[in-house]
Amino acid sequence: MEDYHKPDQQTVQALRNIANRLRINSIKATTAAGSGHPTSCCSVAEIMSVLYFHTMRYRPDDPRNFNSDRFVLSKGHAAPALYSMWVETGFLKESELLSLCQVDSTLEGHPTPQQIVDVATGSLGQGLGVACGMAYTGKYFDKSSYRVFCLLGDGEMSEGAVWEAMSFASYYQLDNLVAIMDINRLGQSDPAPLQHHVEKYQKRCEAFGWHAIIVDGHSVEELCKALSQPRHQPTAIIAKTIKGKGIPAAEDKMGWHAKPLPKDMAEMVIKELQSRIVNSTKHLYPPSPMEDSPPVSLRNIRMPSAPNYKPGEKISTRKAYGMALAKLGRYNERVVALDGDTNNLTYSEIFKNEHPNRFVECYVAQQNMVSVAMGTAARERNVAFASTLASFLIRAYDQIRMAAISESNINLCGSHCGLSTGEEGPTLMGLEDVAMFRALPSSTIFYPCDGVSTEKAVELAATTKGVCYIRTSRQDSPIIYNSNEDFHVGQAKVVYQSKEDMVTVVAAGVTLQEALAAADHLKKERMPIRVIDVFTIKPLDIKTIIDHTRATRGRILTVEDHYHEGGLGEAVSSALVNESGFNLHRLAVSHVPRSGKPHELLKIYGIDRDAIAQAVRKMLSSSTNAK
Amino acid sequence: MEDYHKPDQQTVQALRNIANRLRINSIKATTAAGSGHPTSCCSVAEIMSVLYFHTMRYRPDDPRNFNSDRFVLSKGHAAPALYSMWVETGFLKESELLSLCQVDSTLEGHPTPQQIVDVATGSLGQGLGVACGMAYTGKYFDKSSYRVFCLLGDGEMSEGAVWEAMSFASYYQLDNLVAIMDINRLGQSDPAPLQHHVEKYQKRCEAFGWHAIIVDGHSVEELCKALSQPRHQPTAIIAKTIKGKGIPAAEDKMGWHAKPLPKDMAEMVIKELQSRIVNSTKHLYPPSPMEDSPPVSLRNIRMPSAPNYKPGEKISTRKAYGMALAKLGRYNERVVALDGDTNNLTYSEIFKNEHPNRFVECYVAQQNMVSVAMGTAARERNVAFASTLASFLIRAYDQIRMAAISESNINLCGSHCGLSTGEEGPTLMGLEDVAMFRALPSSTIFYPCDGVSTEKAVELAATTKGVCYIRTSRQDSPIIYNSNEDFHVGQAKVVYQSKEDMVTVVAAGVTLQEALAAADHLKKERMPIRVIDVFTIKPLDIKTIIDHTRATRGRILTVEDHYHEGGLGEAVSSALVNESGFNLHRLAVSHVPRSGKPHELLKIYGIDRDAIAQAVRKMLSSSTNAK
Repeated sequence: MEDYHKPDQQTVQALRNIANRLRINSIKATTAAGSGHPTSCCSVAEIMSVLYFHTMRYRPDDPRNFNSDRFVLSKGHAAPALYSMWVETGFLKESELLSLCQVDSTLEGHPTPQQIVDVATGSLGQGLGVACGMAYTGKYFDKSSYRVFCLLGDGEMSEGAVWEAMSFASYYQLDNLVAIMDINRLGQSDPAPLQHHVEKYQKRCEAFGWHAIIVDGHSVEELCKALSQPRHQPTAIIAKTIKGKGIPAAEDKMGWHAKPLPKDMAEMVIKELQSRIVNSTKHLYPPSPMEDSPPVSLRNIRMPSAPNYKPGEKISTRKAYGMALAKLGRYNERVVALDGDTNNLTYSEIFKNEHPNRFVECYVAQQNMVSVAMGTAARERNVAFASTLASFLIRAYDQIRMAAISESNINLCGSHCGLSTGEEGPTLMGLEDVAMFRALPSSTIFYPCDGVSTEKAVELAATTKGVCYIRTSRQDSPIIYNSNEDFHVGQAKVVYQSKEDMVTVVAAGVTLQEALAAADHLKKERMPIRVIDVFTIKPLDIKTIIDHTRATRGRILTVEDHYHEGGLGEAVSSALVNESGFNLHRLAVSHVPRSGKPHELLKIYGIDRDAIAQAVRKMLSSSTNAK
Repeated sequence: MEDYHKPDQQTVQALRNIANRLRINSIKATTAAGSGHPTSCCSVAEIMSVLYFHTMRYRPDDPRNFNSDRFVLSKGHAAPALYSMWVETGFLKESELLSLCQVDSTLEGHPTPQQIVDVATGSLGQGLGVACGMAYTGKYFDKSSYRVFCLLGDGEMSEGAVWEAMSFASYYQLDNLVAIMDINRLGQSDPAPLQHHVEKYQKRCEAFGWHAIIVDGHSVEELCKALSQPRHQPTAIIAKTIKGKGIPAAEDKMGWHAKPLPKDMAEMVIKELQSRIVNSTKHLYPPSPMEDSPPVSLRNIRMPSAPNYKPGEKISTRKAYGMALAKLGRYNERVVALDGDTNNLTYSEIFKNEHPNRFVECYVAQQNMVSVAMGTAARERNVAFASTLASFLIRAYDQIRMAAISESNINLCGSHCGLSTGEEGPTLMGLEDVAMFRALPSSTIFYPCDGVSTEKAVELAATTKGVCYIRTSRQDSPIIYNSNEDFHVGQAKVVYQSKEDMVTVVAAGVTLQEALAAADHLKKERMPIRVIDVFTIKPLDIKTIIDHTRATRGRILTVEDHYHEGGLGEAVSSALVNESGFNLHRLAVSHVPRSGKPHELLKIYGIDRDAIAQAVRKMLSSSTNAK
């Protein structure tokens, strides 16, 4: 601590003034909105003031500057505290604060991409994982001096995702990461389990490999000192605070979470707070960042050459994913991969072996993996691909939902989808993953059926905005596309057809291969079918599906290795429901399946070649009968 | 440790024999299956042997006896180790092991309800939360002496859910809970992050309030001693083990996870293991349990009286949920409630205030809350209702999926669903929750629209098998049903009709109230509509919907406070797609919404009364034009 210079008294007073103005503005804004969390803002007032006007290096006029220190407000409900800081930095007009939560304001109840935040927050316990991704990027990819600060509440310290991030940060020695924990004792409906026992928080942080410092969270001096310490490992500032500090009637009292002050009370409190603001000639400016981050362009991420597969050659789509990703990485140095201790299953190990410095092992912590991916992708520093089994991605649904709300550009790959996973049984089969991703606005779902389309999916995902999901399968399957086949998001492929086709079969992935086998068989029975590979389940190429179904007299059959609800069949149903003269039949998994060999399971649950052929026969016989 | 008696040498040898037979049987079974995790079984052989034949008190002939100690295999991939124990206890024939993973065997790749386990495992990091629920039940509800043992792998210690459970157990001083951690160093594709640093695991466990003991996990003597210690807090046995112990070529080696041994290698290893088994006259029997658990019946859980609301009276469905639950609890002492620090939002606080001893505060750890609910419901000890905001339940999707696979009878309530949450913004609006629950086999989704139907939903959920979800809203709404109205799962209600109705509007919850307002308005315009309240979105009352839609000439409009995908509109689409002469129009949320007042948001995103009226007008004008 030899090089630590205490701030002079004028600076201390100026920081206190900023903290109290933050309180005033947070109270004003929430009272005007009739909504919000003023008491959660008041506990962090000094922390925010010191961070924004003493500790962090950034450009107030350029909030997304990639050289600047990053800040993540994990306790998103303290949004007005953040907005108040933007008033102090000059980014926002004070009067705008009064529009908080209004339907035409950019200032929402929790931070969203409408503002200048890197990610949306408000679903608790997710900020630190994102901050880890940013810090990892700063230290290992950018090799730059910017630091990452994350402010957490004590309520959210109960979320397991926080401890996944704590493990990650110490494992990778993220000495550019600081977590400030606002221990204000009180949660939404109850006190947090550890109350004001800051020493217990300290013990937990230290056990997880962090340097942990306890401070009085309302002491500007203690905060300045703690935040100025040189760091050799991730640092936790455990700030003991008072919820509602500065609002006498609410200080350290239950029943004040998420409650704006009544107008008269607000006025009284504001008056008192104003009296504490001592005029000072000292104006504080945040220190400027070092300009030592490399410029990065994520445009023109593409494959240098066409896929190199021969028709009929066999490869699983999961392996093709790993090969494609390694190839993409070969020509685009900002493509990075993450995995959760499954890289020899998802085949991201091929990328890892070729580009070890751009591979991030996230261990068995899928929630944190998704958050870290969001962090690496923030400020357009990297194109991130994160993979694990499709069933394990389900663990991270809330993080993926937050990625969608954040408008993060992240790519996720789930391998071992569906029944075709086989012997390991239902817990390891992703059978609701399509439903899960479809329900997120602006998501894209790739479900390739062979090596060529998998490589194209990887290439397209890299430049498609929003959350992209690539669904891959365990088993080998033959290449059906030529290497020069052109693929687009939302464009289906007709892979089998004749003029006499009687039924259109719509499939993807493993069921596409089954449909092709059924088509060969049915041809011999003189019941030719047309087979469509949707390629992307979302967006779905409705036009191609409808056009070809008309050509087969409205007869259409969907087949999917997924539960009925929310999957391909339901997407097609939604698209066709108002079309007249159509007859849709759907094959999908109806019950929780069991262990068995993949081909046995496809048969038992009725989505294999025989089931397809049988369904086609039935459709044709009933339509003949009907005539 | 004064009362600890070392096992005699014959006992020690018998326990070692059991451990080696476990190795042999696990290798035999996985080699026969060509699938499975023999090396993960070998590391836990002595642990399982000591647990099953020295520590645990249970009845081998009655595996679900409610007085017995419970065992949860959190590292579900070691399933053959568990099956081998069942051979030792006589529950399973040794020959049955050879059917592992076969399509007609009860022995699946991971434990499932096909067998005698209390819950399915295999999605990592979930077992300890379930064990917490069982231990909480034993200590606080049953007030009984049975204990709960949970075996975890070191890979899954990276899952945040484990640390949520660790916090929960120490907070509630679950001294009847023992976690055995199999620190075998190696994961699926990489070593676990803490490798063999057992002291780091110990530090973390202690920081989370556990008593933590390091042992040699292959020493029967050390395990017997550690597991016999008297306990005053939850205890972690940190067992340093060798992955693949007993398989010389695989011991402590990477590349052997999830790999059965080739046949010839298996034979060689088995021979060597057999040579270590020393014949002994000593036959071990597990100690019997104390019979001190109260008998419990969960049949006939019902309300003693009809709801007590007056038509027109206003109450939010979330508050009606809390009141109904408290009422149900008044007459059924095995109804228990859980919440995640939101009990004054979900109104489970009404239950808490009335039945404080049956309320479990789970804090901001939704994943653990769901696992704990599964644990309390296991062996039919309790009817569990767990609540939080609908958006926060999304965090626990994987746990809910595992509850469905486990055939757990748990009831979940998500409040503040949809846009009508208002000012807090999109992160706090559950807009994909229906898609999420619909995609789970055998789930039931209640979406009541008033106080009466909410009370009925709570009553029905209590006796409906499987995962039940009750979706409640933030805002007050008028009572529309009479108190004596009869409700059933899968039965919709026609709540507004006349002979002249021109369009059938299908809605639920807040949109049902909007549809009724639109109906009043449209009546004046001489465009009468029929309004259906689905009550349960799953199962959906297709017959009622189709019958009434026919009466309105096939015109049908769905309205929902949810994204398009996977919700009510898509469910109706799926049901109607092959009906001819129908014209379906759907109103739902299309984009990530923003903050604002509830009524403003319903209007902006087009699901309010005006949007309904406008859609009806449009449907009628276009069908007139078409004629």
